[in-house]
Amino acid sequence: MIGQRATNITWHEGHVERASRHALLGQQGATIWLTGLSASGKSTIAFTAEHALTAAGRLAYVLDGDNIRHGLNSNLGFSPEDRTENIRRIGEVAKLFADAGVLTFTSFISPYRADRDLVRQMHVKAGLPFVEVHVAAPVEVCEQRDPKGLYQKARQGKIPEFTGISAPYEAPTAAELTLDTAELSPEQAAAALIDCLRQRGLLPAGI
Amino acid sequence: MIGQRATNITWHEGHVERASRHALLGQQGATIWLTGLSASGKSTIAFTAEHALTAAGRLAYVLDGDNIRHGLNSNLGFSPEDRTENIRRIGEVAKLFADAGVLTFTSFISPYRADRDLVRQMHVKAGLPFVEVHVAAPVEVCEQRDPKGLYQKARQGKIPEFTGISAPYEAPTAAELTLDTAELSPEQAAAALIDCLRQRGLLPAGI
Repeated sequence: MIGQRATNITWHEGHVERASRHALLGQQGATIWLTGLSASGKSTIAFTAEHALTAAGRLAYVLDGDNIRHGLNSNLGFSPEDRTENIRRIGEVAKLFADAGVLTFTSFISPYRADRDLVRQMHVKAGLPFVEVHVAAPVEVCEQRDPKGLYQKARQGKIPEFTGISAPYEAPTAAELTLDTAELSPEQAAAALIDCLRQRGLLPAGI
Repeated sequence: MIGQRATNITWHEGHVERASRHALLGQQGATIWLTGLSASGKSTIAFTAEHALTAAGRLAYVLDGDNIRHGLNSNLGFSPEDRTENIRRIGEVAKLFADAGVLTFTSFISPYRADRDLVRQMHVKAGLPFVEVHVAAPVEVCEQRDPKGLYQKARQGKIPEFTGISAPYEAPTAAELTLDTAELSPEQAAAALIDCLRQRGLLPAGI
């Protein structure tokens, strides 16, 4: 349906219906919320899935530290209140993206169950699919990877309240999917994630 | 390009490039920022354009009071600081939508030049098109329309600091487009807006 010619411009007082964008894109929007420790593999899985879906003609987008912490949430720190507000805003933006028809991946540690549940509830209330994905790897494995040297700094006390070391991570109790990245390669994890979306009717069988 | 089958899943460490989504959607993203007094016609023009573009197979989305004030910005009031933060957040979200390839319309009074300029700058910095549209109607015309009775309440002192009555509106000095809605119907205004996007290379000639 992409690229047809406009024939009429008629007065409208409200938003385009979700179904119209669904028909246009051949997909419905959804939020796929990746949660897990630093270096558990969230971003790699999100980007690998985003690339695969884009190559398959699907509109996907990743919200991550890169495009959120330096922009929308640049005025937030790491206090408990700011962490909660950080996740709330990301949830609201993901909801807008999902409403627009985008398969929206979020890649944030999001260590607190209450914060994630709040985001789930705002999606449920809006009638939008929410898929919580626990990117699970033992903290020892994550610490061994430590690609940015963050665990090392946390051990040295240079980063206070570091999740998994000096601050808690509350693992999901009812995630739609758990990906054990001590066992799965990024490709395998992304494939499992895409399979999960297919099974939930968020992707056609052919993809 | 929509709807092709995924053949490979390969490891990626970064975002899908803008050009890939551009190719997928047959369009590049942009922010079209509508500014003007209450009842000047911003939302009607945005929705009319959104419907026309969707019917033409383009992905468009409107950010407005409806989906922002009750969600992302529900924790902001109307103090000068909160108004500025309101516009900053909307600008950041519009930037993310534009980055994702969406033709993104924003419909907010956004009375302060400095706030709008800040949003323009964040788009310029990100290499994303920003089109400022002044939806202009004399305050007398807007007050006569007053579909929500807001001007009446403002005159009665029930709404403090109401733009155009008891708070300033700083009109754009270099908007990409000015739409005089005392003269133009919503359809004519939306058509002129779509024509402006076409002339700026943001829509193919056929639309």
